[in-house]
Amino acid sequence: MKVVITGGGGFIGAKLAKALLARGGLTRLVLADQAFPNLPADARLQTLAGDVSDPGFAAQAIAPDTDSVFHLAAVVSGAAEADFDLGMRVNLGGMRAVLDAARNCAKPPRLVFASSVAAFGGELPKVLNDSTTPAPQTSYGAQKVISEFLVSDFSRKGYVDGRSLRLPTIVVRPGKANAAASSFASAVVREPLNGAAYECPVSAEMGVWLLSPRRVVDAFIHAHDLPPFAWGWNRVLNLPGITVTVAEMIAAMGRIAGPQAVKRVTWKVDPRIDAIVKGWPVRFDTPRALAMGFKADSGIDAVIRDYVADENVRVA
Amino acid sequence: MKVVITGGGGFIGAKLAKALLARGGLTRLVLADQAFPNLPADARLQTLAGDVSDPGFAAQAIAPDTDSVFHLAAVVSGAAEADFDLGMRVNLGGMRAVLDAARNCAKPPRLVFASSVAAFGGELPKVLNDSTTPAPQTSYGAQKVISEFLVSDFSRKGYVDGRSLRLPTIVVRPGKANAAASSFASAVVREPLNGAAYECPVSAEMGVWLLSPRRVVDAFIHAHDLPPFAWGWNRVLNLPGITVTVAEMIAAMGRIAGPQAVKRVTWKVDPRIDAIVKGWPVRFDTPRALAMGFKADSGIDAVIRDYVADENVRVA
Repeated sequence: MKVVITGGGGFIGAKLAKALLARGGLTRLVLADQAFPNLPADARLQTLAGDVSDPGFAAQAIAPDTDSVFHLAAVVSGAAEADFDLGMRVNLGGMRAVLDAARNCAKPPRLVFASSVAAFGGELPKVLNDSTTPAPQTSYGAQKVISEFLVSDFSRKGYVDGRSLRLPTIVVRPGKANAAASSFASAVVREPLNGAAYECPVSAEMGVWLLSPRRVVDAFIHAHDLPPFAWGWNRVLNLPGITVTVAEMIAAMGRIAGPQAVKRVTWKVDPRIDAIVKGWPVRFDTPRALAMGFKADSGIDAVIRDYVADENVRVA
Repeated sequence: MKVVITGGGGFIGAKLAKALLARGGLTRLVLADQAFPNLPADARLQTLAGDVSDPGFAAQAIAPDTDSVFHLAAVVSGAAEADFDLGMRVNLGGMRAVLDAARNCAKPPRLVFASSVAAFGGELPKVLNDSTTPAPQTSYGAQKVISEFLVSDFSRKGYVDGRSLRLPTIVVRPGKANAAASSFASAVVREPLNGAAYECPVSAEMGVWLLSPRRVVDAFIHAHDLPPFAWGWNRVLNLPGITVTVAEMIAAMGRIAGPQAVKRVTWKVDPRIDAIVKGWPVRFDTPRALAMGFKADSGIDAVIRDYVADENVRVA
């Protein structure tokens, strides 16, 4: 079995690669990305450096003998909003290139696409559900929704066997803050745990719909393994998650790292970030995903403890 | 004021052109299409023959001094389903080319986009409303929905002032049957009125959500003229229409043309057409459109009488 991960050099992509290699059955795993900072050592692994929105590179990465594709490569929300053309090229053009390459495979590959709850915006109900209509208020969200419709139509035509997952905000991400508007949701835990001061750009009452790196990797693999009839005609799914306010995240961090860590957080609302994040949905009912066997985290304390364990964080 | 109609050589495009020329205020009207069979004679009119999905042609048609664009050019539903690549190129690539050209205008033009109720499919409620989630089950429908999201995001960014209208099936179209799966809905009235036999490819009980050529031209102009605040962040609208079964259409034709016209209809279900059309929605509540001043036809008899008058049909 030959599998391709676009964005395979990123944090989630590399974690997914490790999980796929660990479970066996793989003969080859191709990681396509611009760079590969977190590479596991494995003879089955092949890295390809390039831009997946280049049709030639996408065709090279997704060769005709490919069985499965996980399409994670994307420009993050803040960057796609700041540079419209870049977001259109990578997030929409990249999806097109991936689908066209997948369509040329010997048999229609399974395709798991990392979409986002940034699909939702505008006048939102208090609690979103499986029938809430997407109305993105960012270009990133629009590009994700458009990609979902492409994956669904390519699947309906039998060109791929696609599954689009609307990811909650992934918390806790290691490393540095990035251009994602959601970057604060990891940084507000990660930086104080590392002994660093953190100036939070959104208010303490801001709610976040989140999922841990462990659970999102589980979700990618589960989405991949489910048979086509488990999906039917509806190839888009809101993943389960938990709703946590920034204040609750900081309190949980305090329970793990002590009150001195909490004191490292200061507040300065960034109107640009605040405006984007305020438009994101905070609460969901996800009966379809739960019935299909997808799982949320048990709570924010477990999310932070998993992060500390997985990333070997020495609590400062 | 300079206005561009893509698909301006088509039946609706030419009717819209005549209506825009009649109301004045126009200095120039550019019709972009492959051919122009129904051209009104007017010094303000300019025709450009070409393919709007070619970015160079789109930029030529939508020159920087353009004030308004009506984007009607499309490959119809049956053709987009039979030739996936053609539909993607013209219906999606054409929208991209039009938006990119519009974005390069001196000031953001008004853009009215002809979308379709083919946006809807899958597990539908009995009556659809303004919050029903699009789930197209044809490539044509998918391309229309994707185009709506592009128009909305380009509008949100301020690149255009866009408005997408989900058109009901337009009845009665003159001329010949075409590759649209909805072609029967006009032909079942038009052909017997012309004295021709007609073999209907769907059952008499099939319901159709329809709007007349007169009302859709009114809708395009009304959508254009409404100020941006009347649209707000939601740039997509289900137009009003009426629900009529094929049997009711034939009965109305009989009231106008006599029982001998009714006898010209025979039945032979085409499974391909039937499968596509069965997936289309039949009943809508359209409170938003009605509140915004859009209007449906008063009934199927009026729709047929308007057709007879507008097309100078001599009832056989």
